[in-house]
Amino acid sequence: MSTKGGALRLGTGGEFDRLRAIFASLGAAGRGLGDDCALVRIGARTLALSIDLSLEGVHFRTDWLSFREIGWRATAAALSDLAAEGVQPLGVLVSLAVPDHRQRRPGNASPAVQIMSGVGAVARSVGAHVLGGDLTRSSRYLVDVCALGVARRPVRRSGARPGDGVWVTGRLGGAGLALAALLAGRRPPAPVRRRFVRPEPRIAAGAWLARHGARAMIDVSDGLAADAGHLAAASGVRIELALERTPCWPGVTPLAAARSGEEYELLVAFSPRFRERDARAFRRATGLPLTRIGRCLPGRGIRMTDDGRRITPPGGFDHFPGR
Amino acid sequence: MSTKGGALRLGTGGEFDRLRAIFASLGAAGRGLGDDCALVRIGARTLALSIDLSLEGVHFRTDWLSFREIGWRATAAALSDLAAEGVQPLGVLVSLAVPDHRQRRPGNASPAVQIMSGVGAVARSVGAHVLGGDLTRSSRYLVDVCALGVARRPVRRSGARPGDGVWVTGRLGGAGLALAALLAGRRPPAPVRRRFVRPEPRIAAGAWLARHGARAMIDVSDGLAADAGHLAAASGVRIELALERTPCWPGVTPLAAARSGEEYELLVAFSPRFRERDARAFRRATGLPLTRIGRCLPGRGIRMTDDGRRITPPGGFDHFPGR
Repeated sequence: MSTKGGALRLGTGGEFDRLRAIFASLGAAGRGLGDDCALVRIGARTLALSIDLSLEGVHFRTDWLSFREIGWRATAAALSDLAAEGVQPLGVLVSLAVPDHRQRRPGNASPAVQIMSGVGAVARSVGAHVLGGDLTRSSRYLVDVCALGVARRPVRRSGARPGDGVWVTGRLGGAGLALAALLAGRRPPAPVRRRFVRPEPRIAAGAWLARHGARAMIDVSDGLAADAGHLAAASGVRIELALERTPCWPGVTPLAAARSGEEYELLVAFSPRFRERDARAFRRATGLPLTRIGRCLPGRGIRMTDDGRRITPPGGFDHFPGR
Repeated sequence: MSTKGGALRLGTGGEFDRLRAIFASLGAAGRGLGDDCALVRIGARTLALSIDLSLEGVHFRTDWLSFREIGWRATAAALSDLAAEGVQPLGVLVSLAVPDHRQRRPGNASPAVQIMSGVGAVARSVGAHVLGGDLTRSSRYLVDVCALGVARRPVRRSGARPGDGVWVTGRLGGAGLALAALLAGRRPPAPVRRRFVRPEPRIAAGAWLARHGARAMIDVSDGLAADAGHLAAASGVRIELALERTPCWPGVTPLAAARSGEEYELLVAFSPRFRERDARAFRRATGLPLTRIGRCLPGRGIRMTDDGRRITPPGGFDHFPGR
């Protein structure tokens, strides 16, 4: 048994940088640190694990989401990390904290039960099981999900090479559109709201991409531009994104789409031999578009163009705006 | 790959009972539900997983523990679940939430870094790695640890049979003694405090017991009497405990020792062929006493005697006293 790398999902700022350093000193190889999943060899197999904390007031609000949606969304975020490695999930373990609700109406399932039904529903949707959990009282809701799966050929963030094409699944900006409406006190239209409250982890898509030679992959959780930056940094390449090619939700500008977080689509690098006809095969297999939006070059960082004009890449999605 | 059972760590009360039911409906086999770890078959190996949530104000107080101790203690609790299955840990994933500490003194490591150094120290002490994590801002500290390991021969709670002897490792009551002092505003004597703030997961002891034929095992986290009750329920036996045999910390009565939670010793059932000379071999191997404190009988529930007189079993340790 050996341990290869580790998964980190951290914010930005000085303390987070120091913690990154201590994780690196505590964990095994530095190479994998910062990937979507921790990978552990067990005999001939590679186990992939990811942990994902969702806190009331930080990641969700109970007036925006039903309890079932809170469970779905928190679990989908952890499963999305497995999707980004091309991993088939086995199951999830869930820590739950719930306030003591004495005012609960008789007949209604408790919030904890409703949250767990959302956890179970999204796990089932990708063939995974609820393996175990922990439940505690707290003043605020909290859902922490550890997802695990087995990788045939895990796809790291670090495998992109100069000359590779950069592609993205689905359409971006729906989650941001929903968030903007919710922040403004409006209820988003049903398909937009659904995109936000019931994101679908791209497990089948990730497995297809891994099977067809994906060199590097990441899920779009911080925003396209930010996550492309993570992939570029891990791979030691520069990524150029052509903003006008970004597949957008109706009513969303490419710039807004490129900074919309928690989209849970997959950003993937392929050798130049991967062509449009392969993307059509992907769409036939998964029902999702796969759009070439950029390429890898020697160098570092992100460069964005809009119809050929260079623009400043937008910042990523931040759970702590203004801090 | 198949999924065997699931690990639950729940409190008591109506909502928890309903959640137990929904976990059972979501999880795989009912047999394992309520065990210390979730067990997942991966090829020829069995993976054991446990998740353990520690919240400020519920499981710890920052005026009682240093940040390093908070990390150690939260991680030791998850690793103790692996010990109770006789499992060798591979690693831990850690979700951390920390307040935004602007008042931090320059030169001091941040609380998050100190917590992680405690996590890393106890993981290293049992040969495990920090595999990954998640970090978020929150108004209160939170440490959620998912521990995983590989089991040669996992020992469930459910294997005890009538006629088996019931044994316990180490001495009980130290954690309760420390807690009582802290609650009274006193600083406990160093060895007592150490027992509370730096519990040692009994990994080597659990592995020895598993190797030598342990039939059923559980860690003492809710209190000896309560955990004996869990083991009896899972195994479908009655357990009789002879209170006067309980190995106690100096200054602790057997009754107090039997209700002291978070002791992280191991309670284990062996066939009657396991004798005192085997316990001496255990002590030579691990440095810990192994004391026969009771036996399994046909029936259900717990019966306690004190020098032959029957007494009412004390209640377990409760994170929510008075609710």
